[in-house]
Amino acid sequence: MHKNFKGIEKTVFGRGAFAQLGDILEERRQDNDKFMFFVVDNYFKGKDLEKKIPAKPQDVVRFIDVDPEEPTTQLIDSLRDEILSKKGLPSGVVGIGGGSIMDIAKAVSLMFTNEGSSTLYQGLNLVKKPGIYHVGVPTISGTGAEVSMTAVLTGPTKKLGLKCEWTVFNQVVLDPDLIASVPRNWWFYTGMDTYIHCIESENGLLNNAYSHSYAEQSLKLCREIYLGPNSGQTPENDDKLMVASLMGGLSLTYSEVGVCHALSYGLSKILGMRHCYANCIAFNHLHDYYAEGVTEFKEMIRKHKIDLPQGLSKDWTDEQITAMANVSYNLPHMWNHAVGPDWKDKVTVKDIEGLFRRL
Amino acid sequence: MHKNFKGIEKTVFGRGAFAQLGDILEERRQDNDKFMFFVVDNYFKGKDLEKKIPAKPQDVVRFIDVDPEEPTTQLIDSLRDEILSKKGLPSGVVGIGGGSIMDIAKAVSLMFTNEGSSTLYQGLNLVKKPGIYHVGVPTISGTGAEVSMTAVLTGPTKKLGLKCEWTVFNQVVLDPDLIASVPRNWWFYTGMDTYIHCIESENGLLNNAYSHSYAEQSLKLCREIYLGPNSGQTPENDDKLMVASLMGGLSLTYSEVGVCHALSYGLSKILGMRHCYANCIAFNHLHDYYAEGVTEFKEMIRKHKIDLPQGLSKDWTDEQITAMANVSYNLPHMWNHAVGPDWKDKVTVKDIEGLFRRL
Repeated sequence: MHKNFKGIEKTVFGRGAFAQLGDILEERRQDNDKFMFFVVDNYFKGKDLEKKIPAKPQDVVRFIDVDPEEPTTQLIDSLRDEILSKKGLPSGVVGIGGGSIMDIAKAVSLMFTNEGSSTLYQGLNLVKKPGIYHVGVPTISGTGAEVSMTAVLTGPTKKLGLKCEWTVFNQVVLDPDLIASVPRNWWFYTGMDTYIHCIESENGLLNNAYSHSYAEQSLKLCREIYLGPNSGQTPENDDKLMVASLMGGLSLTYSEVGVCHALSYGLSKILGMRHCYANCIAFNHLHDYYAEGVTEFKEMIRKHKIDLPQGLSKDWTDEQITAMANVSYNLPHMWNHAVGPDWKDKVTVKDIEGLFRRL
Repeated sequence: MHKNFKGIEKTVFGRGAFAQLGDILEERRQDNDKFMFFVVDNYFKGKDLEKKIPAKPQDVVRFIDVDPEEPTTQLIDSLRDEILSKKGLPSGVVGIGGGSIMDIAKAVSLMFTNEGSSTLYQGLNLVKKPGIYHVGVPTISGTGAEVSMTAVLTGPTKKLGLKCEWTVFNQVVLDPDLIASVPRNWWFYTGMDTYIHCIESENGLLNNAYSHSYAEQSLKLCREIYLGPNSGQTPENDDKLMVASLMGGLSLTYSEVGVCHALSYGLSKILGMRHCYANCIAFNHLHDYYAEGVTEFKEMIRKHKIDLPQGLSKDWTDEQITAMANVSYNLPHMWNHAVGPDWKDKVTVKDIEGLFRRL
């Protein structure tokens, strides 16, 4: 039984494509209660991009600070309840920002039409109805959230996505100009999310010709962006990074992430560490699992003089380490892909604690 | 202004995926007049695949011989009129076959809801309403018709596609087992359609990071399938060819075909030559335009001992050659991409006649 996956409905790619957003939204402005709901990374408040958002007087533009924590079920529920009670049902939701903002836009689109708390829908195919029209405009590339069929949320008991075909964006606007001013360290951490997606996708059970073809090309682009003679933050590399992120995400359609993401979820859930950064912190010490990938990753770190702390675990309590290891252990689909169906014979919670102690 | 393109809505990829078609169609069987319309390449009449088509008693299964000619506007109109008058509006159209069958399924889906002859809609965005649900199941890979937003038809005056976002399939089933028994020469000719798409996409004005990334990976797959140490018709290469065809098609989303396709359209329109074969006949002599690609193509021809006739033009009349050159010349988007905006200063109908005389 092969996965029957939903693709992004419409995509526009190219420098300056953000200027087309107004025309794109125009076609949907008569739907529902005739206003658009923009969810924008707080980073852009007061910046040039704010003035270019094609909002009309009836629209709601909400700036959200995603720095303190990754998107929570509580945030989604309260956004939904507030907008519904004050303004009604939007014509559409437009997310402008990084992976967290993409996830907020996708999740709130679904929750506008599905009753109760979003905690009820964390998992695969639990959502009951299609959401409203939703558009993703990435301003930082790498997570693949622009193409994935999941909206990852941290709830009171678990970090898990609202995963179904209706999660996928109706429209994505890929404008490489929007990622030009990303600070160096974050350009690296988020780009490495794509690199790690591909390494994990390739090294595991579920990899097939489809996921391999996408991962291979995405890795090639990552090498040009982060290692080659023309590496660095240039307009050409920004173009490539947007495509690499998309292709890394498409690779995961048929394959899976692995050990690094399992650890990263533990770091995010227990310590509140940001996803892409947590991936880098973990991947740096996973030579046993991904030897070639980790070697190349370290080269990239050196080349771009990236700050990546080590020795963090000495400040963690045993309880924190056990809690993180439990979060990781409870992601069987990742371990199954990376280690095999008999992974429980090979990897214990104690082993995973050992991995966390390396960080 | 960047193209805002429509993607395939749902895709299932993997060996044996054809067995999932029945379940996929089940969800749509209550639509319209509650029957499915299957359009199947006549090649499969009496073959094993015929028994596996998930048709129900109320469905219409029509075998079509696409060998004598490429799909015509007349064929589409008469199929539509016949089905509507005898059975009503289908729940969906399912095309099972190669590029011609894909084009028939896409075109007839649109013509079920758009009045008058399909000749009225040949061109970009002339179609007025969305068509009915339509599914593509390729049984031969390379044309990219499974992913493209065009359904190429030969009309009384022109060979031109019904090109709009509603042309794109709602569902594609990519089962590499279905292409396993393709005869050697056709495995080559159709695969080369992808190879040529990528060479033309890469060598021209419109190529961008998106089209380049897809073309580069598709070319890499083509080299593995047709040139590398493991080249040939194997299950692994059939997997790759299905992905290469998809990626070659996606490369053209932002880029364009070039000189080879311009000549090929002339060969098909005037001589009725099949598209993929016509491409190979023309590409073999386009060293002036695509030197590296043509050299590699000739290596592939030799490696797989493919029959590719030369010296055909000695049997063509001057009138035929002029007519073909005129068809080619009247594809300005291809010449513009391949030669530049000043192509009319560089290429005359006489020059194109000269290219045809080489074949």
